Order: sequence, then structure tokens, then C-alpha cells
Amino acid sequence: MRIDIITCLPSLLESPFSHSILKRAQEKGLVEVVVHDLRDYAVNKHKQVDDYAYGGGAGMVLMIEPIVRCIRQLQENTSYDEIIYMSPDGERLDQPIANQLSLKRNLILLCGHYKGVDERVREHFVTREISIGDYVLSGGELAAAVLADSIIRLLPGVLSDETSALSDSFQDNLIAPPVFTRPSDFEGMKVPDVLLSGHEQRIDDWRHEQSMKRTAERRPGLLDD
Amino acid sequence: MRIDIITCLPSLLESPFSHSILKRAQEKGLVEVVVHDLRDYAVNKHKQVDDYAYGGGAGMVLMIEPIVRCIRQLQENTSYDEIIYMSPDGERLDQPIANQLSLKRNLILLCGHYKGVDERVREHFVTREISIGDYVLSGGELAAAVLADSIIRLLPGVLSDETSALSDSFQDNLIAPPVFTRPSDFEGMKVPDVLLSGHEQRIDDWRHEQSMKRTAERRPGLLDD
Repeated sequence: MRIDIITCLPSLLESPFSHSILKRAQEKGLVEVVVHDLRDYAVNKHKQVDDYAYGGGAGMVLMIEPIVRCIRQLQENTSYDEIIYMSPDGERLDQPIANQLSLKRNLILLCGHYKGVDERVREHFVTREISIGDYVLSGGELAAAVLADSIIRLLPGVLSDETSALSDSFQDNLIAPPVFTRPSDFEGMKVPDVLLSGHEQRIDDWRHEQSMKRTAERRPGLLDD
Repeated sequence: MRIDIITCLPSLLESPFSHSILKRAQEKGLVEVVVHDLRDYAVNKHKQVDDYAYGGGAGMVLMIEPIVRCIRQLQENTSYDEIIYMSPDGERLDQPIANQLSLKRNLILLCGHYKGVDERVREHFVTREISIGDYVLSGGELAAAVLADSIIRLLPGVLSDETSALSDSFQDNLIAPPVFTRPSDFEGMKVPDVLLSGHEQRIDDWRHEQSMKRTAERRPGLLDD
């Protein structure tokens, strides 16, 4: 898989992709993440990529020309499954969408900043708009990092233990059960006996029961699907 | 405001807080963000902070002792309004929650990683659990960065134009209207005439109408509140 991220703040994305799971996934050759600086595609000598909104009002808008130049240059060498604009009013990201996108080959993620991008980019060039949630961020960069992370960790071979992602919350429409590790007694707070019992069937039953209970309490909607 | 972030991967959080709006907010003294490395609070000489889950199964669990040591040390000098655990099954972040948290003075954000933290931390030390959405990430670090960003940009004085955050999506339960900037004609794709008219009232009316339409299409639930 290849993920191209278009942004006016490439430096903001440095650390999330250079550590831990996202770093290892790239080192293993399972995904290639390329961050593009919108300023490299600016059309004037001031490297301008944003301007005031027509009609007035606060906040800057990312200009259409640098974005379209960047997209077209990427498309010369690669065919993209989706050109995704990160926007708070897009389709809300959930686990089924992450699963579905993890099966694609090439994705462009376009990050807005300040008031967003010129609407004509959304109308004519973007194929899908995704929101990571109903709240506003300074820009689409963190949202793109979140979307990329949710996808990349699902790629086969990325997590060291293949079963790890399958026991996550939201797979099978259930929230994961509580987890405990050493010590078994911390200042009188104890690990449930069943988890120390070594009795595999009882442990599985307890975990399933806890998952059901937690899902009913916290995300009852998942049980309706 | 002060935000303390506890993580086993502090380096992952370097770039999001050292650029753009989040950097400027710190430079202006409007917020202090301090990232704490869980390894500095490890109790054994191997600096161990995670271990296998009791009862078996894939994935590592963050141990209770380093987390509690870190929280207690922070609490010696500061009184915290909330100790927030970033978890996919927590309360779902939305704009009203971001608004509400932006009024607090001191927050701790605790990042899980891999399978999460020992449940006893959640039961006995965490005061609130927040999810940035119904999907699973490699860890809570990006979620903490998203939550911090959603809060910090609301602090008075952070955005250069005070009206900027007020015209965002979700404030007033409406999605923001489309925005356009120069050029007014790009390869035949034109900016709506009304925005070029200079007629303030007509522009305001058009924007409100577009906001209503977009909200009805994309987030009809917002209109019920």
C-alpha cells in the first residue's frame, strides 16, 4: 500500500510516522507513506498556498491551484483508489471504513488547514471525505495521521502477532474486555481470580461476558448491527 | 492551562506540539504541554512498562505501577481537574466536550498502547475516559494530540482572529458553509457570484442557507438538539 499525504505543514507529520508501529510497517516494506509539501506546488514566487475567503470573514482558505498541481503530478505515476479529504463534515470514520480502506492499494490524503480548502477541490477532485469525529482541529494533519494509523495497523504483517488486531475493540462489534498484568495485587487492588486460574474456557467465557457487558453499557448501538 | 501527557512513546508526540497553532499557543504562554515518558517511572532496572496479559492472549498491557507513580508525582505539585484515559470505548469526543474541557485548568492525558492499560488504573485513578472515535489506533498518543488540539485552539488568544473558532463547524450546531478563494475562475470552475457581489447581507444569507443544507445532508442529528 502507498499513502500520499498532501499538507501545508509537512513537519507536523514527522514524528507520528517515524516511530513505533508506523515506522516498522514502512521498514518492512508493507506501506510507503510520502508526505508532500503544498508549498512545492505553489504557483507564485511567494510560495503562497492560502488566501482570504471570497465574501469576507475570518480565516484563510487553501488555494485550488497548488492542490490540483500536486494531485495531477502524483497521478502521472500512480493510479489512486481514493483521494480523501480530511474534513469534520465528512463521512465519520469507524472500524468498518478502516477495514475497507486497508484493502486499497493507493490513497491520497488531503489535509485542510485553517478554514479548509477551496470548495472546488472538494467538488471536482476529491473522491471521498472522511471525518475522524465531530470536533474541529487546527488542520487535517492529525486527522490524516489518525486515519493512516487506523489503516496501516490492519495490514497483514504489521502487528507482530496476527491475532492482535482481531481481538481489538469494534472487530466483531464488541468492545474489548478489561486487561490486567503484573503485579496481581497492587496496594490491595487485585486481578480477578478467574484470570489467574489457568482455566482457558472459564477465561474465555469471562472475557466474552465482560465484552458484552461493556458494549451494552458504552456502545449499545454496536449490538444492534 | 496545563496539559500533562503520560506515554510510553514520548517521541511520537514531538512534532504535533512543536508546529503551527499548538507551538504558538505555548510560546504565548496560553498553555503548557508537558510530555512524560512512562519509562522514567518504571520500577525495575529494565525500565519495563508493559507485560503480558493475565489469562493469556495477544498483545501487551501497560503496567499499573509506573503509571500510578507518574500520576502521584504530578499530583504533588498540581491539582488536576481530570485524569483522562484515551480509549476507543470511552465517552465520544465532540465539540461540546472540547468546549467544556477548554475551561479547565489542569488536565492529565494518559495514553494506552497496544492492548491498553491495566484495568485497575481505569477503575481507581482515571476520572474520565475519552474516545476520539469508534476505531482502533496503535496507541493513545495520536488521540491525545487530537484531544489537546481540539481544546487548545479554543483557548482565548490562541487563534489570531477571535471570531475564527466561532465560525467553525459544530459551533451553533451547524456545519460550516463552503469556502472559496482566488482565482475566481479555475479552468472554468467558478466561484458563486454571490460571494463576489460585495453585498454583505446576501453573502450572510447564502452562507446560512448553505450551512443549513449541508448540516441536513451530512449531520442531520445536529439540527435536533
